[in-house]
Amino acid sequence: MNTITAAITGVFGWAPEDVITNEELAQMVDTNDEWITSRTGIKERRVLKNPQLSTSDMAVKAIEGLLKQTNTKAEDIEVIIVATITPDMVFPSCAALTATKIGAKNAFAFDLNSACSGFIFGLETAAQFITSGKYKKVILVGADKMTSLSDYTNRNTCILFGDAAAAVLLEPNAEGNGVIDAVLHVDSNNWEHLCLRAGGAMKPATHETVDAHEHFIHQEGQPVFKIAVNGMAGAARDILSRNNITGDDIAFLIPHQANKRIIDSTGHFLGLTPEKICVNIEKYGNTTAATIPLCMYEFSHKFKKGDNIILAAFGAGYSWGAMYLKWAY
Amino acid sequence: MNTITAAITGVFGWAPEDVITNEELAQMVDTNDEWITSRTGIKERRVLKNPQLSTSDMAVKAIEGLLKQTNTKAEDIEVIIVATITPDMVFPSCAALTATKIGAKNAFAFDLNSACSGFIFGLETAAQFITSGKYKKVILVGADKMTSLSDYTNRNTCILFGDAAAAVLLEPNAEGNGVIDAVLHVDSNNWEHLCLRAGGAMKPATHETVDAHEHFIHQEGQPVFKIAVNGMAGAARDILSRNNITGDDIAFLIPHQANKRIIDSTGHFLGLTPEKICVNIEKYGNTTAATIPLCMYEFSHKFKKGDNIILAAFGAGYSWGAMYLKWAY
Repeated sequence: MNTITAAITGVFGWAPEDVITNEELAQMVDTNDEWITSRTGIKERRVLKNPQLSTSDMAVKAIEGLLKQTNTKAEDIEVIIVATITPDMVFPSCAALTATKIGAKNAFAFDLNSACSGFIFGLETAAQFITSGKYKKVILVGADKMTSLSDYTNRNTCILFGDAAAAVLLEPNAEGNGVIDAVLHVDSNNWEHLCLRAGGAMKPATHETVDAHEHFIHQEGQPVFKIAVNGMAGAARDILSRNNITGDDIAFLIPHQANKRIIDSTGHFLGLTPEKICVNIEKYGNTTAATIPLCMYEFSHKFKKGDNIILAAFGAGYSWGAMYLKWAY
Repeated sequence: MNTITAAITGVFGWAPEDVITNEELAQMVDTNDEWITSRTGIKERRVLKNPQLSTSDMAVKAIEGLLKQTNTKAEDIEVIIVATITPDMVFPSCAALTATKIGAKNAFAFDLNSACSGFIFGLETAAQFITSGKYKKVILVGADKMTSLSDYTNRNTCILFGDAAAAVLLEPNAEGNGVIDAVLHVDSNNWEHLCLRAGGAMKPATHETVDAHEHFIHQEGQPVFKIAVNGMAGAARDILSRNNITGDDIAFLIPHQANKRIIDSTGHFLGLTPEKICVNIEKYGNTTAATIPLCMYEFSHKFKKGDNIILAAFGAGYSWGAMYLKWAY
C-alpha cells in the first residue's frame, strides 16, 4: 500500500477580460436574458478576443499565477498536462507551447483530451505521476477557448460556452490529504448527441464542412441533459458509497459547470445544502476542461485542510466521473 | 523505492491493407521512387481507404489482436490511452470511441497528444498508472490516420506519411523488467517548422484555410532533420549514460520511423550494429504515434526476456526523448 497521496498544493484560474452578456447574444440570435438564465444559469461568459492569443496563452496566465502563489520555479516543474479540446493547433501540442512560454525547461508536456471531463481524467492521471514516487511537481491545466468552436448563428449552443484556463500544482503528501479516489467512465454509444463532426480524421475540413457549420459544437440538449444528471450524480453517489461517506461528510462539491440545473440536480441527489455547492457558471458559462479548476480557484479561500471535496463532471464521449479529495492546505 | 515496474506484456500492430507505392505517388506529384527511397527509406505506406472507418477503428483492430494474444478480457482493462494527433473527431475522444467498440466497459479512456513522440510520452504516462500500485491492466495505443492530414499536391510531405495503429498492454512486474527510465523533453521555440496551421483554436477552419492547404502537415525538411538527429541521439545517449550502459549492452533500438537517415544517424551515434536497429519504415512510412509500437510488434519475436531495449522519438512540438526498457517476456 502506497502511503504517498497526490495533493493539490495550489490552484489559480484566469479568464480573459472581455465579456459577452446575454443581452449581446440576444442581438445575434433569437434569445433573451430570461430564457438563457432560467434554462442554463448563465449571465455572461468571457471571450479571448485578441487574435494573436490562443489557448496556450490562457494556460500560461494560469500557470504564472500558480507558480507565484506556490512560490515554485518554472524549471522545477517536471510534467505539464494540458486538458483541452481546443489546442492552438492540431500539432504541436498546446502543452509544448505552454511549457516553453513559461520557461519550464525541465518538464515534458502533453495534451489530454477528454472534453468536459478532461480535468478529472487529467487529475487522476497527474496523481499517478506523484503516487508512483517518481515525480514531485506536476502541473495540470484545464484550458479551453470554446468560443473558437461556437456557432454564433445557433442559439442552442452559442449561449453556453466561454474561454478560460485554470491550473493546479500536484505534489506528494504524507498526511493522507490529496486525491483519495476516482470513479471514471466512458461510453460512446450515444456520442452523436455531443460532438464536433468535422476537422478530425473522419471528416477533414473542406468547403462543404465549413458551409455546413460542422466545425462547431453539436449538442442535442434534451438527451444530453438527462444522461448528464444521471452520470454525474451516479458517479458521485458511487464514490461516496465506496468511501463510506455521506453528503453530511462533504465540505464542498465542485461540479463541472455546464448547466445550473444539472448542478442543482447533482447536489440535490447527494443531499447537499446549497452553500456546499460551488457554482460560478453565471460568470463564465461552460469553459469545458477549465470549469472545475476555475471554480476550485474561486472557492478555495473557503476550503480548510482536511475538507472532503467531491469533483464531478460529465461531457462528450460520453465521459464522466467523480473524484474524492481531502484538501491539503 | 517502488519495487513494481510497469512491463509491456503484449504488443500488437495493425495496418490497413491498401498500399500507396512510390510509383503511385510519382503519378500524383513530381517525384520518383529513387528520390523517395534514397532520401527517406520509404518504399510504400498504408492507407485506410474505407470512408466509414477512422482512427478508432484501427485502434480497435490493434487492441483486439492484443487482447487475444495476451488472453485478456476487454472488461478487465482499466485504462485506455490513445496517443494520436488524428482522432476521428475533435470530440468525443478517439479513446472513448475505441473503448466502447472493444467492450472495455470498466475502463476510462482519453487521448494523449504529443505528435510523433506520443507513444513514448504515453508509455511513461501509462507506466505511472501501474507503478503507483493502483491499476493492473493499462492499454496504450498509438494510432494515426496520417493520410487524412497529407496534401497529395505537396511532394515534400505526402511521400512521408501512412496509416496504422499498434497497442501494448502494461501490467505490474516484480522481476525488475519493464520500463526502467525515460528522458523526455519539449521545446517549442521552433514549432513553426513542423505544424498544422489551421483547425485549432488559433485558426479555425474557414474557406481561406481550406484553400491555403493549411489543414495539411507543414514540415520544413532541413531544419527538422538536423534537430531530430540531435534530439533523438542526444536523449538516447543521456539515457544510456545515466543508467551506466553502452551500445554493447543494448539488444535493440526501436526508433521512431520518420526517416531512414535519422534512424541510421541515431544508431551510428550509439555505436549500434545494424542488426540491433529495428526498422520497418520501408513498408509503412511515418505513422506518427504508431511507428514505435508497430515496429516493436514486428520485431518482438526476436526479443528475449531481460533484453535491454531503447525507444527513441522526435516530433512536432518539438517533443522528443528516449526510454529504456527491459523486455519482460
